[in-house]
Amino acid sequence: LEPVYPMPKISYVNGRFINHRDAFVHIEDRGYQFADGVYEVIAIHNGLVLDEEQHMERLARSLASLRIDAPVSDASLKLIIQELLRRNKCQEGAIYLQITRGVAKRNHEFPKNVRPSLVMTLSKTPERHSMNNRTVGTAISLPDIRWERCDIKSISLLPNILAKQQAVEGKHTDAILVNDEGYVTEGSATNVYMVDSKGTILTHPANHSILGGITRDSVLKVARRNGLKVEERRFTLKELQNAREMFITSTTKGVMPIGMLDGKKIADGKTGPVTTQLQSLYDDYVEQKFNEAVA
Amino acid sequence: LEPVYPMPKISYVNGRFINHRDAFVHIEDRGYQFADGVYEVIAIHNGLVLDEEQHMERLARSLASLRIDAPVSDASLKLIIQELLRRNKCQEGAIYLQITRGVAKRNHEFPKNVRPSLVMTLSKTPERHSMNNRTVGTAISLPDIRWERCDIKSISLLPNILAKQQAVEGKHTDAILVNDEGYVTEGSATNVYMVDSKGTILTHPANHSILGGITRDSVLKVARRNGLKVEERRFTLKELQNAREMFITSTTKGVMPIGMLDGKKIADGKTGPVTTQLQSLYDDYVEQKFNEAVA
Repeated sequence: LEPVYPMPKISYVNGRFINHRDAFVHIEDRGYQFADGVYEVIAIHNGLVLDEEQHMERLARSLASLRIDAPVSDASLKLIIQELLRRNKCQEGAIYLQITRGVAKRNHEFPKNVRPSLVMTLSKTPERHSMNNRTVGTAISLPDIRWERCDIKSISLLPNILAKQQAVEGKHTDAILVNDEGYVTEGSATNVYMVDSKGTILTHPANHSILGGITRDSVLKVARRNGLKVEERRFTLKELQNAREMFITSTTKGVMPIGMLDGKKIADGKTGPVTTQLQSLYDDYVEQKFNEAVA
Repeated sequence: LEPVYPMPKISYVNGRFINHRDAFVHIEDRGYQFADGVYEVIAIHNGLVLDEEQHMERLARSLASLRIDAPVSDASLKLIIQELLRRNKCQEGAIYLQITRGVAKRNHEFPKNVRPSLVMTLSKTPERHSMNNRTVGTAISLPDIRWERCDIKSISLLPNILAKQQAVEGKHTDAILVNDEGYVTEGSATNVYMVDSKGTILTHPANHSILGGITRDSVLKVARRNGLKVEERRFTLKELQNAREMFITSTTKGVMPIGMLDGKKIADGKTGPVTTQLQSLYDDYVEQKFNEAVA
């Protein structure tokens, strides 16, 4: 019962490029038994690997947090990515890259002398036309029941998928997670922002409670560089409900406005001016990255 | 770099009994990418599957919590277990059983029309001589940083392995998890108990904060049946430090005394009378189960 692909997709598993339907890992891979691994999703635009350095840096941080050795050097990782794109003739889409602690007899403690597993595969993300999602999404708020190290981009994603599923069943774009103290942390797979009455963009600071997204970093950087006011501080669900604008960001969604939260409109429910400007700035940023790469 | 086994071990993967070294699952199995699955560890003693019904019931509850369909009936599951024991000539050890939502193109929301994956393998747990561990263990306390649905026996075990690893590096048996309010919840893969100054056995109630262990249920049942005082209520780390006795339980450890916590002795640091009695009662319970099964 594997998914059906329009053409034979090639994936990478522990040193080999193979037909995706033959891409298997051992049942005692610690990624399978313990969620003992990390991942990255990297956007491909015009054949360019977007923000590759930032993804490599975050990956290194995630691995270090869990004390998993990098299975290959960054240079090799980049070569593998290039070869994967070449073999799949991929111009637009996303790379899914996962590293786990490796295969070992099941025991909670870290095994000795194991080689970490490295898996890479591509997705087409056909829903995206540009780096940004121009449609206006809707969201629901849900309690943030995740563990206290959300800064590690681990595959321990069960609370995230349960939240996303609840959102999708209500035909919402995403679930907005609210912690025990009433503060908005992030979405199920996105970062969350509001624009307050003074026009300042607010988002949760990048501490242990959220995953500091690459797109988040880029969006905040271009916002500041262009004179928009940005404050990385926590805000409550109530503040968000009364926001002038609301949007989310992620590698696969870019900058996406949210017009409705828990069935109530955010302001007039349309894409606000700050969000529109950010979409344009982020588009330019991606375009510039691309031009630099091909120059 | 797979683990080496003394003889060709047979495992079960999605309908097939195969050589353990050939036991593989697809890289897009949601257990591998999202920790979207559940598991059970079931003790085998004298060829008997211990507390099989209770494990089946808990497995069904875990699956229901995540809305994963059972891939086979309970009756089939039991037959597969029997066949696995037979093919491996297993008399003592433990069964590891894992069910995930199945293989699907990576998307957070639940996929439609997928068949859940079922994997089973054996371990020998050679360290255990009887159902109980007669040695006295030591423990450290660590913050409980897990998610808020620890009652689901999910494979989302990253915080647990990090805690266990820290314990093992200090040469301790286990890590005792303490929540933000100062209450002891459970161990990294065990339930935790103390005996207070009145001789009452205390343990955290089975709510969302802990996994209600099968061994926990059995131990509390035999304790009550034999006139020991049991109270399922939360206790603080401070109460535990001043306990008359401390012990942990799990499928693979049985009833195991802990004589030292964070470098300080619990009482005189030896196995106390209540723990000794419980070990004996639990031994009898297991023996009786065995006799019923062969009768």
